[in-house]
Amino acid sequence: MTAEKIRDLVAQMTLEEKGSMCSGADFWHTKAVERLGIPQSMVADGPHGLRKQDDKADHLGVNESIKAVCFPAGCGTAASFNRELLTEMGAVLGNECQAEGVSVLLGPAVNIKRSPLCGRNFEYYSEDPVVASQIAAAFIKGVQSKNVGVSIKHFLANNQETRRMSVSVEVDERTMREIYLAAFEGAVREQKPWTVMNSYNRVNGTYAGESKKYMTDILRGEWGFDGYVMSDWGAVNNRVANLKAGMDLEMPSSGGQNDKLIKEAVKNERLEESVLDTAVERILNIVFRFEENRDKTAYFDLDKDHEAARAVAEETIVLLKNDGVLPLKESAKVAFIGKYAKKPRYQGGGSSHINSHKITSALDMAAGNPNISYAQGFIDEEDRVDEALLAGAVELAKGAEAAVIFAGLPDSFESEGFDRVHMRMPECQNELIKQVAQVQKNVIVVLHNGSPVEMPWINEVKGVVEAYLGGQAVGSAQYDILFGKVNPSGKLPETFPLKLEDNPSYLNFPGEGDRVEYKEGIFVGYRYYDKKKMEVLFPFGYGLSYTSFDYSNLRVSADRIEDTDTVTVTVDITNTGKVAGKEAVQLYISDKESSVIRPVKELKDFAKVSLEPGETKTVSFRLSKRSFAYYNTAINDWHVETGEFDIMIGKSSRDIVLTKEIHVESTVTLPVVYTTDSIMEDIFKNPEAKERVMKIMGSNMDIIMTTDKDEEGSASAQAITAQMQEAMMKYMPLRGVVSFGGGEAGISMDDIRVFVDELNAL
Amino acid sequence: MTAEKIRDLVAQMTLEEKGSMCSGADFWHTKAVERLGIPQSMVADGPHGLRKQDDKADHLGVNESIKAVCFPAGCGTAASFNRELLTEMGAVLGNECQAEGVSVLLGPAVNIKRSPLCGRNFEYYSEDPVVASQIAAAFIKGVQSKNVGVSIKHFLANNQETRRMSVSVEVDERTMREIYLAAFEGAVREQKPWTVMNSYNRVNGTYAGESKKYMTDILRGEWGFDGYVMSDWGAVNNRVANLKAGMDLEMPSSGGQNDKLIKEAVKNERLEESVLDTAVERILNIVFRFEENRDKTAYFDLDKDHEAARAVAEETIVLLKNDGVLPLKESAKVAFIGKYAKKPRYQGGGSSHINSHKITSALDMAAGNPNISYAQGFIDEEDRVDEALLAGAVELAKGAEAAVIFAGLPDSFESEGFDRVHMRMPECQNELIKQVAQVQKNVIVVLHNGSPVEMPWINEVKGVVEAYLGGQAVGSAQYDILFGKVNPSGKLPETFPLKLEDNPSYLNFPGEGDRVEYKEGIFVGYRYYDKKKMEVLFPFGYGLSYTSFDYSNLRVSADRIEDTDTVTVTVDITNTGKVAGKEAVQLYISDKESSVIRPVKELKDFAKVSLEPGETKTVSFRLSKRSFAYYNTAINDWHVETGEFDIMIGKSSRDIVLTKEIHVESTVTLPVVYTTDSIMEDIFKNPEAKERVMKIMGSNMDIIMTTDKDEEGSASAQAITAQMQEAMMKYMPLRGVVSFGGGEAGISMDDIRVFVDELNAL
Repeated sequence: MTAEKIRDLVAQMTLEEKGSMCSGADFWHTKAVERLGIPQSMVADGPHGLRKQDDKADHLGVNESIKAVCFPAGCGTAASFNRELLTEMGAVLGNECQAEGVSVLLGPAVNIKRSPLCGRNFEYYSEDPVVASQIAAAFIKGVQSKNVGVSIKHFLANNQETRRMSVSVEVDERTMREIYLAAFEGAVREQKPWTVMNSYNRVNGTYAGESKKYMTDILRGEWGFDGYVMSDWGAVNNRVANLKAGMDLEMPSSGGQNDKLIKEAVKNERLEESVLDTAVERILNIVFRFEENRDKTAYFDLDKDHEAARAVAEETIVLLKNDGVLPLKESAKVAFIGKYAKKPRYQGGGSSHINSHKITSALDMAAGNPNISYAQGFIDEEDRVDEALLAGAVELAKGAEAAVIFAGLPDSFESEGFDRVHMRMPECQNELIKQVAQVQKNVIVVLHNGSPVEMPWINEVKGVVEAYLGGQAVGSAQYDILFGKVNPSGKLPETFPLKLEDNPSYLNFPGEGDRVEYKEGIFVGYRYYDKKKMEVLFPFGYGLSYTSFDYSNLRVSADRIEDTDTVTVTVDITNTGKVAGKEAVQLYISDKESSVIRPVKELKDFAKVSLEPGETKTVSFRLSKRSFAYYNTAINDWHVETGEFDIMIGKSSRDIVLTKEIHVESTVTLPVVYTTDSIMEDIFKNPEAKERVMKIMGSNMDIIMTTDKDEEGSASAQAITAQMQEAMMKYMPLRGVVSFGGGEAGISMDDIRVFVDELNAL
Repeated sequence: MTAEKIRDLVAQMTLEEKGSMCSGADFWHTKAVERLGIPQSMVADGPHGLRKQDDKADHLGVNESIKAVCFPAGCGTAASFNRELLTEMGAVLGNECQAEGVSVLLGPAVNIKRSPLCGRNFEYYSEDPVVASQIAAAFIKGVQSKNVGVSIKHFLANNQETRRMSVSVEVDERTMREIYLAAFEGAVREQKPWTVMNSYNRVNGTYAGESKKYMTDILRGEWGFDGYVMSDWGAVNNRVANLKAGMDLEMPSSGGQNDKLIKEAVKNERLEESVLDTAVERILNIVFRFEENRDKTAYFDLDKDHEAARAVAEETIVLLKNDGVLPLKESAKVAFIGKYAKKPRYQGGGSSHINSHKITSALDMAAGNPNISYAQGFIDEEDRVDEALLAGAVELAKGAEAAVIFAGLPDSFESEGFDRVHMRMPECQNELIKQVAQVQKNVIVVLHNGSPVEMPWINEVKGVVEAYLGGQAVGSAQYDILFGKVNPSGKLPETFPLKLEDNPSYLNFPGEGDRVEYKEGIFVGYRYYDKKKMEVLFPFGYGLSYTSFDYSNLRVSADRIEDTDTVTVTVDITNTGKVAGKEAVQLYISDKESSVIRPVKELKDFAKVSLEPGETKTVSFRLSKRSFAYYNTAINDWHVETGEFDIMIGKSSRDIVLTKEIHVESTVTLPVVYTTDSIMEDIFKNPEAKERVMKIMGSNMDIIMTTDKDEEGSASAQAITAQMQEAMMKYMPLRGVVSFGGGEAGISMDDIRVFVDELNAL
């Protein structure tokens, strides 16, 4: 429907109808207005599957939904570093939505993994905004290609579950721009999601949904978002403030209460009716966009989509350690140990919880292999060791050629709704791994978890496979990777720190009372570990393969550019091993010298390339101003400081294999305002200003510049004095001229003020 | 002179005379008013010696001053952990001032060592406010016992030299109270310094000297300071604003310019004359306090005071490593290597630079010992290796039984005026140590430095002696400790991190432009390393001895107290070794559980005890509310949260040997204001409030509290659901009752608001 027609439609609506349109009819539907031909429109939880509910609706994954296909959760899909794969996955889900009449799938969730403890990390993508945003964009592209919308969430800075409905996230503007907003920005700009879901929390004191700055100025004004913003379920505090800020649709129903408040506010002139009209237009625009593009023929086959989930799972698994033990031979006598071999933990609890139509475990896959035996090893939801199960597993491992331990976090350790309180796996599992490793030299641990865990046994095992929460087909992918039928290609979209205390948010997570301060600022994830030169368990971007890749021939289309130019970077990747494989190639930028505090390097782009043995492909990246910029709060814009940058190509954030330097020249002159507090070092950056200052100061600086050498005055003592005087001079504010000699010589503060005006007029 | 008499005197002064009294006559004197019998009064740089200048005056230690005795710098004296020693040192200096007619000695300098890089760290005491404040208090007690004043400095938050005259230190209130103000607070409260010197920098945007909050409200209002505040030399920006804030005396002279501004401001009624009167009264009070208590008989003997400096130096040296190599035998063939054996670096550059009347080096001490040989090894102010000197030193070391390398930081590496840019020693020295260690198995490094250095050779040497900047008698103390004539007893008043990047300020030092954010907050020094469970090179409070000490019999006078009570802690220390020795006993407090973010533990008191072999002494500490409290910004007061605390007795911060638990009950009820955003977890802390909420919510929470088990619903799945629901409930704000079921049931936000009022009326 054209914008004009929608405006006409809204013009025909009563105030009551309009107010009413701004909240859900129930848990999952917008309201219909039959007399005007406005249909109900359904939204449904996701995003790694379709959680479509009927009667007993809820937003916590408590009650049943329709049978559907559970894909790997966000933690895993990001590990694929594969945009095409995510687009395919999105298309499958979009099709499922079309078939089920769901207009909007509630996802993707792109919040930054600020702390490994966030209960909802398993749904989120990365500690890095480029990964989060690019993976989200690819997914959105897929879903929306089926004329079904997404709701990118949770906007904004919703990085913990603790007090999520009341906590205020205190974060500075630059950090917000470079990290937390950036996770949304690329996806919104590139793929125009149909809807955005605001988060429960407050940002610097204001509820996200009541923030015009974020919901309107940035989201729509700067990024061009043109859909509707809906509330997270129950995230409404002040409905009228929401509308004014740009939060259009309240979900779920408020029993008509807030509709009434809207109506009253318009009547009492506390709310302009045009604001309400705009919100309704936005909602209807999406309602009709779906309605008018329905694919009535759409249907989906659960088994076929299961295979799609399997393909995704294969790329979400990250091989973290392999001391020559993998892949296993199917002829080898292998003990599968641990509950998750039989009942894998493959998704998380909460709104994203899918009613899977079937689940394939690794043990299911092993059904035809008589060499594989199984022992449970531990009781899932327990921390306590079950001695009998442990003994049985150790006994089984003893007699095998290798033991694969299917371990990880139980549901009760990570979930929507609450945060983890430590980074450990259950004691019963750590103990199991240690004891099995004592009797079996070939131990491989397969992990099922949505967020990093400490690995106290890392040096006692030969292999570690991070399976994340791999969806309902996870067992197939695990089995095929363990036995070399699939070559692992996932890489970590987050750092695995050695211990919880290492993580940058540790001192300020989850905050005090209803306030959490992001004091680590921009130093989230590898930005922190790199800058602090810390050892980590596994670095961001890290993952092994059964083949090897050679990087060569890094070329940059120019070695000097202006910040308004773009530049092309190409690099050749060769599969130098014996099996086909895929490699996630990473491009980082490092500002070699900066007057502002910057990370050592930042990921700016990545590509996944598939290579047969011996094959070489050229990967190409395009960099622009933003790739080199930081957010400058003085000009409220991205800014590149003139100078040298390193373009780095890495296998991971800690394995940079090729580097080329480029000079970027800024076309923007930052405004300089001189004051009586301006120091010489800053003033001297402008040669003309320097000359004038030297003229006025020259003789008056004698008092500090004259050295009266004592008899012991060695060359070195003179050098020090000169050094100290130089520093004194450098850091001297203009007003210092009065205190340090100038005053005695008759220079007054008024003279300095006049002089400052002269400098500003230059 | 009585306060009344001073008021009378001020009443007789003209406006011009009063304005004039508020700035120096020259670099070192206040102004005289002859007609009223007001004499000039002299101040002089210090504080680890007397820098009294005559003609060529300066504030950077550039020009000559009278011959005096250089005591160990602040970095070292704090390492003594010995209050009595500091009082004795203060008394010696006070007497020198009396003899020289100096009314105020400009020190002590108590600024917190936020970063190891601060150029002026050598003058400062500690990373811990209790150490800084207690050492300062002891020193002040000594100086002022001679009726000479001190000027405790630099008030406030002056923790770097970079842009020190223009930088704004951005720091939150709690951190300011617990760390930066606390460094001054104890000393001001206990010893009432005659004067305070304000710092150059800005604090949260306002120049320290223009901050009424700090210069008046806290300093005088809360802490009872009754002297005058003077500016650091040239720290005046807006003189009238200074006066209003409580900064009384400008130093040095402004050539009469600011006197004129004061006069005009009074005439134009921009400044109340009473404010000026008060400032003049404060200045005159101190001028006459000195004048009326002159000890005309005072004189000092440079050689006698040299011996006092030697006694202090003996306790400022910290034995950091001793793999059985120390003490050395005088009969052993020992190579003294390194420039500092002959010309020790024993003080720092800048305003504290003393014109030492003589200097004793370790080599001077070795004059009578034919077994000691010497090689220079490196050129002092150079980073570059001098191959010939290096080869000579290696050759000498080869033929010796042990090599003592006198190393450290050259003057050009640390000084007032500029900050260090790395934490390394000169390459020529590191290389020397490494190469000597290759030919000589008994290597001892003696360090001369004012701040921590990285020690890449730590595992290659057998002994490390931290001599800090030990004053002019440092060579005597070093020699006697090396050869066992003195038992080392210093302990580190700061952490030595493994590398620069480890330090908590690293990400935010020295800031961006004229702004430095103290984002590490209260986590300065060991508070950070402990919380982050980081390895360090040497921990806070650490230091070895030639004897051993046993700690026993920790007793606490009560195991339950109210926060208004005091409690006595006693512990027995026994010298279990064969030589006499001194031990710095440390008391830390740990809040075992807290709703606010707190350090793992904090030093609350310390004592130095001297013990003959076999001797036992009982050390006693008195703890009060402040020992258990954190600064609560909601009530703007120190607050103890009811609960258990550990009282820990340690040999160092990382070697806690005895612990006893105590329960402290708060007598203060923190104000609670309920709002519609109050969450259930907070409300439920009040049983009555909980009961009321449960009544209103009860049936309305069904929608999230009812679980519809699916057929696969295992016990574990039910547990998870219950856990998630519990979290949902806990974090639910009152307003959530409307969104989550209550709205449908007819509960409105107005109802919630009425209910909130009821809760607040409880």
